[in-house]
Amino acid sequence: MFSAADYAFMSHALRLAERGLYSTTPNPRVGCVVVRDGRIAGSGWHEKAGQPHAEINALTAAGAAARGATAYVTLEPCSHHGRTAPCADALIAAGIARVVMAMEDPNPLVSGRGQALLQQAGVIVQMGLLQAEAHALNAGFVSRMTQKKPWVRLKTAASLDGKTALNNGVSQWITGEAARRDGHRWRARSCAIMTGIGTVKSDDPQLSVRHIKTDRQPRKVVVDSHLVIPLEARLLQDREETFIFTAHAENLEKKAVLSHMNARVIVLPDAKGAVDLLQMMTVLAESGINEVLVEAGSGLNGALVEAGLVDELIIYFAPHLIGDDAQGMIALPELTNLEQKRKLKIQDVRMIGQDIRIIAGFQ
Amino acid sequence: MFSAADYAFMSHALRLAERGLYSTTPNPRVGCVVVRDGRIAGSGWHEKAGQPHAEINALTAAGAAARGATAYVTLEPCSHHGRTAPCADALIAAGIARVVMAMEDPNPLVSGRGQALLQQAGVIVQMGLLQAEAHALNAGFVSRMTQKKPWVRLKTAASLDGKTALNNGVSQWITGEAARRDGHRWRARSCAIMTGIGTVKSDDPQLSVRHIKTDRQPRKVVVDSHLVIPLEARLLQDREETFIFTAHAENLEKKAVLSHMNARVIVLPDAKGAVDLLQMMTVLAESGINEVLVEAGSGLNGALVEAGLVDELIIYFAPHLIGDDAQGMIALPELTNLEQKRKLKIQDVRMIGQDIRIIAGFQ
Repeated sequence: MFSAADYAFMSHALRLAERGLYSTTPNPRVGCVVVRDGRIAGSGWHEKAGQPHAEINALTAAGAAARGATAYVTLEPCSHHGRTAPCADALIAAGIARVVMAMEDPNPLVSGRGQALLQQAGVIVQMGLLQAEAHALNAGFVSRMTQKKPWVRLKTAASLDGKTALNNGVSQWITGEAARRDGHRWRARSCAIMTGIGTVKSDDPQLSVRHIKTDRQPRKVVVDSHLVIPLEARLLQDREETFIFTAHAENLEKKAVLSHMNARVIVLPDAKGAVDLLQMMTVLAESGINEVLVEAGSGLNGALVEAGLVDELIIYFAPHLIGDDAQGMIALPELTNLEQKRKLKIQDVRMIGQDIRIIAGFQ
Repeated sequence: MFSAADYAFMSHALRLAERGLYSTTPNPRVGCVVVRDGRIAGSGWHEKAGQPHAEINALTAAGAAARGATAYVTLEPCSHHGRTAPCADALIAAGIARVVMAMEDPNPLVSGRGQALLQQAGVIVQMGLLQAEAHALNAGFVSRMTQKKPWVRLKTAASLDGKTALNNGVSQWITGEAARRDGHRWRARSCAIMTGIGTVKSDDPQLSVRHIKTDRQPRKVVVDSHLVIPLEARLLQDREETFIFTAHAENLEKKAVLSHMNARVIVLPDAKGAVDLLQMMTVLAESGINEVLVEAGSGLNGALVEAGLVDELIIYFAPHLIGDDAQGMIALPELTNLEQKRKLKIQDVRMIGQDIRIIAGFQ
């Protein structure tokens, strides 16, 4: 169905889409290549919400050469008037003869409409080329559209014996510089970084992207059941919005102070008086959060895994031993037989400097 | 100093030496290639103690073609009369003109003597080609000769969050079949498999090589401070010798029964009433044990690491989570700052079936 040339042009479109990895949120990363007579006439990618979509950039670059050409797009062209005009209309107006797309729009309300518009205008439409790759690039956007929750990555760094910190709380610099830099890449592509109040108190993290070139900083999320976050916490001192999820709404004065510090306090108690984590994810999705990176202690890590809210695990193992008495990665309720274990699928294992990075998906 | 052909012939000799991986103990694995006019005239390897050395096998295969030839040997030829005549004499008698060896004999009492004998007879001798590879192949023999202790590998299998067993002791089948088979390869090359009395009681292991073709079974070592091993323990039911190290010699009757079951009870108390682990390693080395594979629980694992007696760590990580409350890999005294952590160097990381295997060396 697809030729070697089709694969090559779609691969190129995917690489272009990746250039928006740190910047398109809440929009998906999309690339487009316009090909006429076997040669690229124009290409483009979506850079930032409010700016032109990938298709418009590629059509502009192609100019008159778009007439009769094939457009390769990593996502179904939009059919609705948002901040920009519908891309399907623009492709038709430019005289594109054939559109190859990697995947349908995951939004169930508009999925298939771009295709239909194109077909009604006599454009040849082909779907599904390098679909898995396109899907992976926008796992968060797809999850938000189809599951009404963000794609959640849980990142942790441990010694080879699985310890993240000493019992006295000392945990910084477990891994080497290369792994820490890699960790900032995961932060840079995320829409929000999540942590628990325990980590705020013990490590006082900034939860910002450093060591990596990016124009956008992710938002921050703190799970703080009793709203005890210190006002001097470092993550509250910058301009990026912080979501604080709590189960207790009594302290109205503190809520008011926090809102002046660009922190949104959201009260979401569950039946046990903790934060309702599933509801929290719904709220984040409704706020346009596609990808969440969790960097927390074993308590919040365990609660999120237990609630089935984690999609992907990123573990850095550092080449040393700390010992059994130290703190673990993920606190889960005790199992009584091994059939109850949470199964994962290893997706990637590699050395990052002197450390080992493992990426695993929940099945 | 060495040509590409030299490297190729020594590589071949190392591959031949590897054929003795499961069988040569307490002798080292050695390979030999005799080359005349750029072609292999004969080759051989050492298969088993009491049988001919690699050089003799290679010379026999080469016959008259050995005259004027080069012999590549992975270890310095012996110069002493043991169960077989000295290989240095045999090489001289066969008319070998040049001997290339990968490494010196590690035994400080005879090291260099084979070389000297050859040189005195006018044979050209070159040393050190692929030395690191030859060394790695016989890490246990080298350690026994130079350190008076075996090379100790600690093997453990854990979930991705570093847990080896549930709190109720259930631990079998953490990893998949491929990893378990790989584990038997490490057993097959070991001279002895070591475990603690806790594992004997909870898992009742056989500590034998299965699923792998080998004519030799390793010996077994149990650390059992209070000599409480059940006489019906499965590892006591076969013909292989078992060393039981204990700190308490009171139960003479049990000692007598055990010795009838081919179990040597060795009393080696330390100042705290536990087994003196360093002394234990000395005794094992004196008994011709080159390589020990430890398959124990976190208590013995931790004590061996703490005593600085472990050379290599082999960890299989299975793709699932068990949770913080479960049992860990290595019980070490609590650290108070991260500078005290035990540093390792990652040597190999790979997938074995669905599991990840990490090999790390202590620095």
